Amino acid sequence: MAEHDLVPQKLEQATRILDEVDIDLWLIVARESDVLGDPSMPLVVGTSVTWESAFLISRTGRHKAIVGTGDVDNLLQTGAWSDVEGYVEGLGSPLRAAVESLDPQSIGLSYSQDNSMADGLTYGMYLELQRFLGETPYWDRICSAEPVASRLRSRKSPDEIQRIKAAIATTQTIWDEFQAWIRPGVSERAISDFLHERLEHHGVDSSWDWAYCPTVMAGPKSPEGHVGPSDVVTERGHLLAVDFGVRQNDYTSDMQRTFYFLREDEQDPPRDVVDAFAVVDGAIQAGAEALRPGVQGWEVDAAARRILDEHGAEEWRFAFGHQMGRACHDGGTVLGPRWDRYGQRPYDKIEPSQVYTLEIGFPVEGRGRVQLEEDVVVTESGCEFLTTPQRALIPIR
Amino acid sequence: MAEHDLVPQKLEQATRILDEVDIDLWLIVARESDVLGDPSMPLVVGTSVTWESAFLISRTGRHKAIVGTGDVDNLLQTGAWSDVEGYVEGLGSPLRAAVESLDPQSIGLSYSQDNSMADGLTYGMYLELQRFLGETPYWDRICSAEPVASRLRSRKSPDEIQRIKAAIATTQTIWDEFQAWIRPGVSERAISDFLHERLEHHGVDSSWDWAYCPTVMAGPKSPEGHVGPSDVVTERGHLLAVDFGVRQNDYTSDMQRTFYFLREDEQDPPRDVVDAFAVVDGAIQAGAEALRPGVQGWEVDAAARRILDEHGAEEWRFAFGHQMGRACHDGGTVLGPRWDRYGQRPYDKIEPSQVYTLEIGFPVEGRGRVQLEEDVVVTESGCEFLTTPQRALIPIR
Repeated sequence: MAEHDLVPQKLEQATRILDEVDIDLWLIVARESDVLGDPSMPLVVGTSVTWESAFLISRTGRHKAIVGTGDVDNLLQTGAWSDVEGYVEGLGSPLRAAVESLDPQSIGLSYSQDNSMADGLTYGMYLELQRFLGETPYWDRICSAEPVASRLRSRKSPDEIQRIKAAIATTQTIWDEFQAWIRPGVSERAISDFLHERLEHHGVDSSWDWAYCPTVMAGPKSPEGHVGPSDVVTERGHLLAVDFGVRQNDYTSDMQRTFYFLREDEQDPPRDVVDAFAVVDGAIQAGAEALRPGVQGWEVDAAARRILDEHGAEEWRFAFGHQMGRACHDGGTVLGPRWDRYGQRPYDKIEPSQVYTLEIGFPVEGRGRVQLEEDVVVTESGCEFLTTPQRALIPIR
Repeated sequence: MAEHDLVPQKLEQATRILDEVDIDLWLIVARESDVLGDPSMPLVVGTSVTWESAFLISRTGRHKAIVGTGDVDNLLQTGAWSDVEGYVEGLGSPLRAAVESLDPQSIGLSYSQDNSMADGLTYGMYLELQRFLGETPYWDRICSAEPVASRLRSRKSPDEIQRIKAAIATTQTIWDEFQAWIRPGVSERAISDFLHERLEHHGVDSSWDWAYCPTVMAGPKSPEGHVGPSDVVTERGHLLAVDFGVRQNDYTSDMQRTFYFLREDEQDPPRDVVDAFAVVDGAIQAGAEALRPGVQGWEVDAAARRILDEHGAEEWRFAFGHQMGRACHDGGTVLGPRWDRYGQRPYDKIEPSQVYTLEIGFPVEGRGRVQLEEDVVVTESGCEFLTTPQRALIPIR
């Protein structure tokens, strides 16, 4: 039930943002939301609902929920919603009445082509809204609530930052346990099993899909991308990169660490992997230096990507960073190249209190991949690391 | 990874259903699907995806997935998808090319006003599809894939029925453990904690939202509906109804059981609660008798509801039954009254191999609620109970 604690403050924040972006009403609709619910619901509603429901979040602070009778007490229990109307037969009439009573000049709906976290309205529910409101003057006043949903999600409150820090601290504990355990001759599958067992031991969930969190990249033969663990085994003279994070108290972490398995005759990692690590580390640091309010996302990506280019490294085929919070990929502005797949998101400007990952890497011939990912929060003038960044390869004997 | 096992057979079933409903192509799109994904994806895709992705399920059996490069191996690992194309810059061009190559006369998209489980397309992704296909002749050929998604989901294969039976067996084990444990003087919260602990002990999840699964109704003062547990305490002379189910190996159960706390001087439950139980039991049995292929959903609801009416019991403000499977509320045809909130769903006809809950109850003055819920599968000529129905009040000393 910890999920409820932040709802009153995020609802207040939503009210302020509505004013800032000049939208009178944010209308969130949902049904069977534990299977498919608007990603904004955990932030501003704080519970799931079963029947067709409407949440009217008003610029004036006069909020109202309209839900099936069976969900009424459920909503009241959140402590964040006091004006809750239950219906038996249908959502249409009470919704029309509530909208007429508020008489908004603009109504933001949760859809967005670019930001999946602001795109919680299904097309069927859109058609339902059209059925309910199509004959009223209000249907001409609808617009995308993306600016509200995106800002609400990306501007982390101090309490949200605290939860992210706690998730990172648990992740670091697990990295330490992992470092003490990992040896040459261990399969990717066994590595995944170990980290899953640690998640259960610490009572936390995986940051993203359990099947490929962790993503394990052992040596040069490991498959790339978001992929479950293979039977490839760690070997001396090879690199191991692991992409991993936890979800704790509803907030996530997302980190990558790179290990090197020393050969019997090596005291330290050899020149090629040390040099590769220096490039990746340099790219992370260059990106962090470029990250500050007012800059566009693609500029940060370019600052990091340039370091790889300068050293002739293989192109990084992903964005350099994404927002992180309640979801591991928290939507909104992305620190990514101006590729079609990212839409408008690389052009958006960085704001204070946003949390980003910084991630990049490349393969080293015959060794595997060097890959790092750190988590940072944007300050008034730059950014601060929330993780303790990995600044050197971790040698494993 | 057990999630994958059923994907090949459900994909085959989807191909047959496309032919049955005369739709050439079912086009599923998704992004960040572990936060918000089409409910059909676990059935026919078998993994989550990060980047904008398209799954083309063709009536000819020629299926193709187009995903961000980082998701390619992930898709191949499912074993159900072999034609997987990765893209770096954007989904638009490869999607247009793939649609042109299949040249479908009709393209079903996942939207539905009535069935939330067939309504997985967000409005933002609908607009993205319009951007990709709007200039081609194919945009005029889109339609709702609801008949495909609904039939695919509701026609349970023998393997799916087995999984549901296994979930019910675990639930029955937990009911037995609960019956041995429950006593007068226990709070709803403690009851919820006990059942949550049992879920963890048996390594299964709650059937629906953990916060209100179980829904506990202790005595006459308990709040009604989908609601978390209160501080109300079980008392002698009161009823206790519990709505509870598990999710095991991706499939669910959903049951309600009613207990009576004997007073010190009572050998058996008193007349008023025994009579009330008989009415509820009679309604469940009447509904089960009415449930067979070809009948409309509302007719089954009416058969059960009539029994309550005849005994002057308070109106049941919910549907008598919903489909159950991968989701506890599995969408599609509902055994419910012809209320606007259920849309077309009560008018749909029952089909063999569908799994339904049968649930009904009412309050007894000064005692609490008598409430039952059983799970059944539709056969060629009627239905079979998957649960062992509760036919008498369970007395607690």
